[in-house]
Amino acid sequence: MPRRNDKPAVAVVGATGLVGRELLSILATHRLGRGEIRLFASERSAGVTLSIGSRKLQVKRLTTEGFRGVDVAFFCAGAHVSRQHARLAAEHGAVVIDSSSAFRMTQDVPLVVPEANADVLAGWEPPGIIANPNCSTIIAAVAVTPLHRAAGIQRMVISTYQAASGAGAAVLEELKQQARDFAAGRSYTTRRIGRQYLFNLFSHDSPIGAAGYNEEEQKMDRELRKIWDNPTVRITATCVRVPVLRAHCESINLTFDEKLDEDDARAILSAAPGVRVIDDRTANRFPEPIDAMGRDDILVGRIRADSSQPPGKGLSLFVAGDQLRKGAALNAAQIAERVVGEVAKTGA
Amino acid sequence: MPRRNDKPAVAVVGATGLVGRELLSILATHRLGRGEIRLFASERSAGVTLSIGSRKLQVKRLTTEGFRGVDVAFFCAGAHVSRQHARLAAEHGAVVIDSSSAFRMTQDVPLVVPEANADVLAGWEPPGIIANPNCSTIIAAVAVTPLHRAAGIQRMVISTYQAASGAGAAVLEELKQQARDFAAGRSYTTRRIGRQYLFNLFSHDSPIGAAGYNEEEQKMDRELRKIWDNPTVRITATCVRVPVLRAHCESINLTFDEKLDEDDARAILSAAPGVRVIDDRTANRFPEPIDAMGRDDILVGRIRADSSQPPGKGLSLFVAGDQLRKGAALNAAQIAERVVGEVAKTGA
Repeated sequence: MPRRNDKPAVAVVGATGLVGRELLSILATHRLGRGEIRLFASERSAGVTLSIGSRKLQVKRLTTEGFRGVDVAFFCAGAHVSRQHARLAAEHGAVVIDSSSAFRMTQDVPLVVPEANADVLAGWEPPGIIANPNCSTIIAAVAVTPLHRAAGIQRMVISTYQAASGAGAAVLEELKQQARDFAAGRSYTTRRIGRQYLFNLFSHDSPIGAAGYNEEEQKMDRELRKIWDNPTVRITATCVRVPVLRAHCESINLTFDEKLDEDDARAILSAAPGVRVIDDRTANRFPEPIDAMGRDDILVGRIRADSSQPPGKGLSLFVAGDQLRKGAALNAAQIAERVVGEVAKTGA
Repeated sequence: MPRRNDKPAVAVVGATGLVGRELLSILATHRLGRGEIRLFASERSAGVTLSIGSRKLQVKRLTTEGFRGVDVAFFCAGAHVSRQHARLAAEHGAVVIDSSSAFRMTQDVPLVVPEANADVLAGWEPPGIIANPNCSTIIAAVAVTPLHRAAGIQRMVISTYQAASGAGAAVLEELKQQARDFAAGRSYTTRRIGRQYLFNLFSHDSPIGAAGYNEEEQKMDRELRKIWDNPTVRITATCVRVPVLRAHCESINLTFDEKLDEDDARAILSAAPGVRVIDDRTANRFPEPIDAMGRDDILVGRIRADSSQPPGKGLSLFVAGDQLRKGAALNAAQIAERVVGEVAKTGA
């Protein structure tokens, strides 16, 4: 059931969270936000008023009725909420863009990073659910897919440097609070994080499976292989939280099927959509989290042939991306724009 | 010319620096510090009084004369000072333990991590220079050599999370100052670091060579191969500074020649000298910089079979070590103890 959509009616579930708020800032400036916007959250946050450009909108409590007439429903409220409401929203006719992990590995649900696999949306018919990948996955996919297309990635070793924002607003606030605690000579506030985070780092705070990988690491592996529709790429990740506010970095080491030298890789990345190369060896300027904050592009640098592999067969990169923006809200909005655009193109 | 030494006369060059001060705290409690101790520094720091246990000693300006009668001279003042004075100190009869990069790759100079290659000291005759490896190298060597002995490391991919202390006292202080600046709502003090470091991270601040690797990364590669006396091990590192005070972390991915499964690796590491395994998957407790601070041991955790390699052929680890202590001063002291001990054993 294709439909118009110059001014789609948009719903944001989890509007008061970090990803929800980032999405509102995107809707304020993108054409996707020109129509009706409905904001939903849990009972606790209902009644709050949020701004989208010059509009002020009240957040409502999430009900299934609320999806009636909605064209695009963004779910940014965690897997539990998505499992409960996303299918119902789709049944009401909405295109659901789900930022939680609930449907990412579900077979019929596309998992999309537009720069990497927009083609999977070609035959897709609304309504239904499209999954937005995990933030670390999106950041890696944007940086690495152009190289994968050129030379075929055989193996990928990733170590992440992940920001506090990925753990939610309360953790982000507590990290800032710990800096104030330090300055005041007080003991650290650890109500949310349970440990000193300022001047420290720790293994990613997601449960660890039987094989010793935490969920974040498993997501990177599974999701990248689904996005590339390639079950044989071998991926191992080590995910670490560092005391940074909202951009993730990733140290990525690649082994290729075909040969790809450093200059060709740099040229490919310089021309790649969604990528900005920052790779100034003389000035020692490479991607940093504070440069990635608030930016749409994924920053890529430290591009160099891997001396531990045969010439042309390996490459290392260092990548930074805003975890809330391209790593979550912006990618969701871009998926929606593709689908709305696709529908417009196929007529109706 | 072997000699006694129950109470060796010890000199510390660069006594007022971070590594020098750490060495004094070690001399205060180790038998190595029971004899005469002479402290040297640049003209700028001469005259300062430092404590070693209950002793108070004045720092003198470094002169070649000052080494007369010294048994062990620790150089902790940078490659420039070592190049100027270390050979002269050795000519005066001292065993020089040089913590700078000046002689690490010099053919006749042993490069030693006692847990990894104490055997190279067996035939070594004082006086002369022994080089103390780079901090990141020492931390990796302690953690990984036991596995190298068991199964032969074929390839090693490292990403580091390095502390401010490695860049010196002024940078460490400025990072703390930036936390105070943040709390006060002031713009960041960047006199030393030239950038925001709090809530940020950046590629290691050492010059980058033609192949795109910075000096820290080249050191890890070269030095580990020298320590293992194995030019064919393939090593690639990505070195990054994170806003942490004084312990370095390293995410290490290994490929073995022989098979080594996860349980055997854990057993080997649990029994390894200088290693403490912290690997509690249920409580999500793994090595963290604040746990490594001030400790002699290298903390090792996240021990897991690498799912991207054939069973038994690959392993990942996450390691933390006090960069100033085992990563520098303690390792230097341990080398000296070995040499003094060796001399004592061989009589004289």
